[in-house]
Amino acid sequence: MTKEHDPGMPVAATSAHGWLAVAGLGPGGADWVTPEVTAALAAATDVVGYAPYVARVAPRSGLTLHASDNGVELDRAGHALRMAAEGRRVVVVSSGDPGVFAMASAVFEAVEAGPAAWRALDVRVLPGITAMLAAAARAGAPLGHDFCAINLSDNLKPWSLVERRLRLAVEADFAMAFYNPRSVARPEGFTRALAVLREACVSAGGLDRPVIFARAVSSPEETLRVVALSEAQPEMADMRTVVIVGSSLTRVIPRDGAPWVYTPRSVLVEGVLS
Amino acid sequence: MTKEHDPGMPVAATSAHGWLAVAGLGPGGADWVTPEVTAALAAATDVVGYAPYVARVAPRSGLTLHASDNGVELDRAGHALRMAAEGRRVVVVSSGDPGVFAMASAVFEAVEAGPAAWRALDVRVLPGITAMLAAAARAGAPLGHDFCAINLSDNLKPWSLVERRLRLAVEADFAMAFYNPRSVARPEGFTRALAVLREACVSAGGLDRPVIFARAVSSPEETLRVVALSEAQPEMADMRTVVIVGSSLTRVIPRDGAPWVYTPRSVLVEGVLS
Repeated sequence: MTKEHDPGMPVAATSAHGWLAVAGLGPGGADWVTPEVTAALAAATDVVGYAPYVARVAPRSGLTLHASDNGVELDRAGHALRMAAEGRRVVVVSSGDPGVFAMASAVFEAVEAGPAAWRALDVRVLPGITAMLAAAARAGAPLGHDFCAINLSDNLKPWSLVERRLRLAVEADFAMAFYNPRSVARPEGFTRALAVLREACVSAGGLDRPVIFARAVSSPEETLRVVALSEAQPEMADMRTVVIVGSSLTRVIPRDGAPWVYTPRSVLVEGVLS
Repeated sequence: MTKEHDPGMPVAATSAHGWLAVAGLGPGGADWVTPEVTAALAAATDVVGYAPYVARVAPRSGLTLHASDNGVELDRAGHALRMAAEGRRVVVVSSGDPGVFAMASAVFEAVEAGPAAWRALDVRVLPGITAMLAAAARAGAPLGHDFCAINLSDNLKPWSLVERRLRLAVEADFAMAFYNPRSVARPEGFTRALAVLREACVSAGGLDRPVIFARAVSSPEETLRVVALSEAQPEMADMRTVVIVGSSLTRVIPRDGAPWVYTPRSVLVEGVLS
């Protein structure tokens, strides 16, 4: 299955035929939207997505906005692919980066299950600033060494798998970023996640590693809170929060205001040669 | 150590005093540089960084470019902090995102080891499009489910730790993104990494999972190659390559040209309830 790739023309230059761009709008602030995404939106005939993300796109003449509910990702992807196959220029919008717990996977799931002709479509993924990197930037550099990203929602996987991944991530001494830590519909998952982390970390560097709760980063409601794992409480997270848990080597620099949190690039400077 | 955070003013509006912005330029293409980073560079008096990244900043009157060699990250960070403390407006540039295996950790290492006054400085991290998400976007959505990011360089950690993390990442069934897979100075590390992955994957979903070699993404030399793990060869990577290895559930969609690769959002659609 070795294939070489032709990067081809940028999306905005291919408007003679239909195309589908799966675009990341970043966490919210306009100054985190890439010029590539801005150009794709300017060239589009249709924008498709979850209503709060579609609401971030300015209406204009010639552009149809298709807002849909949460939880209908495959329907939305199929709708977008059908329009692109009809020759329309379609942007599917995601918050953050479309490839991280967002719409890009749903689009390719729909392609794989759909008509063979969809495989010839011009489908491109336009990356964006993903929530964990925005949160990390606000806190300092907690993801500056090896790390993992876990979606804590158990809508799409059994809780046993979430728990297994948490234990293995602690064993690997990864810093960890959690998406969708806690929703109104399933408040208990994050409570259990914190309990698993505490149990695993007691024997792996202790409970003083920092936990960062970054909520609504780049919105007017932005807050950042840094606590030790021993002090972390489930209600510190909600559905707008990204949670980052440090590795055993993550450092906290106290200062006036929020402390800076960073994970050293090297495990050798700490003298750890595990 | 609980502290609330004031997001404060954007960097470009705080030019009455010195500041330090650690900025991500993205992988290379100008249309992946965020407006926030562009504004910081426009407001800066000094740009500091590894020479190839500083070369991406357009010279202008009033802006001093400080290019340095690779491997002097702490010296560079100290230089930038001293200039900010003197009232200059300093941008430290990284490729990709500054918080992922880049300059942000070095800056905070220097802060922690430096004079107490540095903790009062206005230091901000400006996120960027990190290499693994650019590579993932070109391939489809291989990081659409839980994943980890590992720096394969053993300059800064013992090889035993790299190997342990690889085995645990396979056990957790993460997709994996590898930074710095292979350099001229240490070509053997990636050979060993592939051997470890093959050994671990034989009993964890087999050797047919896809490996993506994304080289020089968004540059004129961009190439993308997708092969099965059983076919992956060390020389397919070099220092400009990001390597992504799928999880046991990652799918390949054959088509004319490079196949699309994606990891389903859900493990349940595959009937896997491990």
